[in-house]
Amino acid sequence: MSELKIRRLNALDADFARQMDALLSWNEASDSAIHQRVLEIIERVRHEGDAALMDYTHRFDRYAVERMDQLELSRDKLEQAWKGLDSQKQQALETAAARIRAYAGHQKTESWSYTEADGTVLGQQVTPLDRVGVYVPGGKAAYPSSVLMNVIPAKVAGVPEIIMVVPTPDGELNELVLAAAFLAGVDRVFRVGGAQAVAALAYGTATVPRVDKIVGPGNIYVATAKKLVFGQCGIDMIAGPSEILVIGDGQTDPDWVAMDLFSQAEHDEDAQAILVSPDAGHLEAVAASMEKLLSGMERKEVIAASLNSRGALIQVRDLNQAIEVANRIAPEHLELSVADPASLSGGIRHAGAIFMGRHTAEALGDYCAGPNHVLPTSGTARFSSPLGVYDFQKRSSLIFCSGPGADVLGKTASVLARGEGLTAHARSAEFRIQHS
Amino acid sequence: MSELKIRRLNALDADFARQMDALLSWNEASDSAIHQRVLEIIERVRHEGDAALMDYTHRFDRYAVERMDQLELSRDKLEQAWKGLDSQKQQALETAAARIRAYAGHQKTESWSYTEADGTVLGQQVTPLDRVGVYVPGGKAAYPSSVLMNVIPAKVAGVPEIIMVVPTPDGELNELVLAAAFLAGVDRVFRVGGAQAVAALAYGTATVPRVDKIVGPGNIYVATAKKLVFGQCGIDMIAGPSEILVIGDGQTDPDWVAMDLFSQAEHDEDAQAILVSPDAGHLEAVAASMEKLLSGMERKEVIAASLNSRGALIQVRDLNQAIEVANRIAPEHLELSVADPASLSGGIRHAGAIFMGRHTAEALGDYCAGPNHVLPTSGTARFSSPLGVYDFQKRSSLIFCSGPGADVLGKTASVLARGEGLTAHARSAEFRIQHS
Repeated sequence: MSELKIRRLNALDADFARQMDALLSWNEASDSAIHQRVLEIIERVRHEGDAALMDYTHRFDRYAVERMDQLELSRDKLEQAWKGLDSQKQQALETAAARIRAYAGHQKTESWSYTEADGTVLGQQVTPLDRVGVYVPGGKAAYPSSVLMNVIPAKVAGVPEIIMVVPTPDGELNELVLAAAFLAGVDRVFRVGGAQAVAALAYGTATVPRVDKIVGPGNIYVATAKKLVFGQCGIDMIAGPSEILVIGDGQTDPDWVAMDLFSQAEHDEDAQAILVSPDAGHLEAVAASMEKLLSGMERKEVIAASLNSRGALIQVRDLNQAIEVANRIAPEHLELSVADPASLSGGIRHAGAIFMGRHTAEALGDYCAGPNHVLPTSGTARFSSPLGVYDFQKRSSLIFCSGPGADVLGKTASVLARGEGLTAHARSAEFRIQHS
Repeated sequence: MSELKIRRLNALDADFARQMDALLSWNEASDSAIHQRVLEIIERVRHEGDAALMDYTHRFDRYAVERMDQLELSRDKLEQAWKGLDSQKQQALETAAARIRAYAGHQKTESWSYTEADGTVLGQQVTPLDRVGVYVPGGKAAYPSSVLMNVIPAKVAGVPEIIMVVPTPDGELNELVLAAAFLAGVDRVFRVGGAQAVAALAYGTATVPRVDKIVGPGNIYVATAKKLVFGQCGIDMIAGPSEILVIGDGQTDPDWVAMDLFSQAEHDEDAQAILVSPDAGHLEAVAASMEKLLSGMERKEVIAASLNSRGALIQVRDLNQAIEVANRIAPEHLELSVADPASLSGGIRHAGAIFMGRHTAEALGDYCAGPNHVLPTSGTARFSSPLGVYDFQKRSSLIFCSGPGADVLGKTASVLARGEGLTAHARSAEFRIQHS
């Protein structure tokens, strides 16, 4: 059965705010049993290293090896995967990689400094991370596009070494993922996954080098492990279910909008697809398109489950109110399916990515427009940003005080340090005051 | 008793790497009883709001009020604190604030976009966070400089509303902290602290508005609460003990270097101060200076305890090896107390802030040089950065595909989506391909 019963809301209802809270509520499973299990896995990998990694891979992925080097995939193996692709797929991956690289190039931050009148120099030195780990899920959610999106910004940032981990349950390899890793320039690949792979990257083993940051999506074990190793190394965001909010002026082909909502809903049953429009007729036309198109979809059960549990069609007074709804939701993906998207985008305060105009399907951004598809979910666009080159660079403040500069600053520092009762700070500053 | 017994290491020792691991090992207290207690506090504030906040403030800070508005400090009250300062302190705070603001101004990121030949526009829209919460500790660790360092970058980023929380145990207010809050432009101040204040900021109560990010230092309860609310809102880093690494060429006055090490050690007994030099005589001269100067220090017990448990004097072969040691440590503060610091700073891959040259005492940077004093600790400079304007801005990707652009990109997206088995994605892209 895949019948659609998508909820309808109206922003003019007195109860709308409460209904929105209910629609958006998402309680991340935080299972304390999983937490405990993951803690144990991390501790064991930390202390037993490769032996623990081989054991877990045998048990969880049913893939047994005798030596750790058998869990590494050579660059040759990646190259073979690349060469084995048909030229259409090669070309599509190359186009996507080139566009992701071009966009990322705009994000690269350079060091800067400025010199004050007395010769004091202040600045910021920007450096890439030394080594980054990329987690790539195995099985059905193994996405080559995700390899490109996670690896290329790190390469553009100048990260010298990128380590990929990917589970290969029952020994099965995903050739498209390996080909993407080859194209993106991954340095080393280990066929390990789960919390044990995260632990190996965070602490290092005899074979797997310790990394400075771990990025990439994964299941609840992977996400829990990333949270637990945070501080030992950096991590990217912890992703919730994927979401799309479409704001429509009513003039976009309802089939297009319906398919855009489906493209989000097909990810999984927790994905969220919402359409907002001031045009009640358009909302119903899109609903009718969805009814019509659903039966032709390969993943119709997932789509129906997602739309029925978390989807919504929301009528608003006008496009300004639609923008308010968008800012309340802070969606991962926001389509402005309107005639003049530029007139609305400036009012958007919170969104991971804004897809402007009727032709800009989210799917174009998911694969190849250029901007990253790793985006903040579950309203976290209120305070976080798409994955980018920024996430693979870091900054060190630079301070050079000339003699006269130290003289002037020393006096201010002394007053403030004494105000805080930190007298060694004060004296350290006072030593630099020239008593002339 | 405050006797100095600071450890000596030599980088040429076969065992040096292991000794460094021991020197740097720092296990953050992760007490599961505290974790559980903080979880309870958060849940109660989340569900009971103001009532819970007043109750906890009564119990933990021994400060009883009958209505929540009695826990708010008016802007008038802050202004009174400012006006009550002597002009020397006012001037020092104003100088510091102006310099912090000027440096932060260099960090502000602007939106950008570029247009491709077919009219496709890609870009990045940068917006400030809506509302930020700043935690300020009460009691002995109440630092007005910390108020300036946390608030000013948020103001420069354009954050429209800044909420400060500060515990006032037994009702006692810190006038210097309130004055700094006035100067920095804090919008509202609540006299609450601990995990309950963090919970109120993260979830909001009837009186305390929900914020999008919480920054600022705090004790283990505050740090634990920040970790637990992360995801509900953003947080800054979780700080470990403060550290300094001084690289000396042997030509800086040993008293200056000794006092710089003291200025770190006086923070608390877990603070870490390390001197590295190729000049064995300099290491001993600094040790002698420390012996000589210690008895005159107000906080000599703390300084001695810190230096004896976590300090070190490290002899190296040459300055290049000193740089290697610095990159191994990834120190929060790094002083290059050498003749030509610019010749060394480019080799530093990991440090929170680099203080260049003999005149640039860390204390100048702590208060008023301009760069932020909120810096990554415990080796996390390998992957993270000083607090800055960046932390109060976020980015939304912008994608506008022209008709011809969507046509070209649609073909690539279709191939990749079908390769991943996501056929609704493929069809959504294919709808935009013009069949002409």
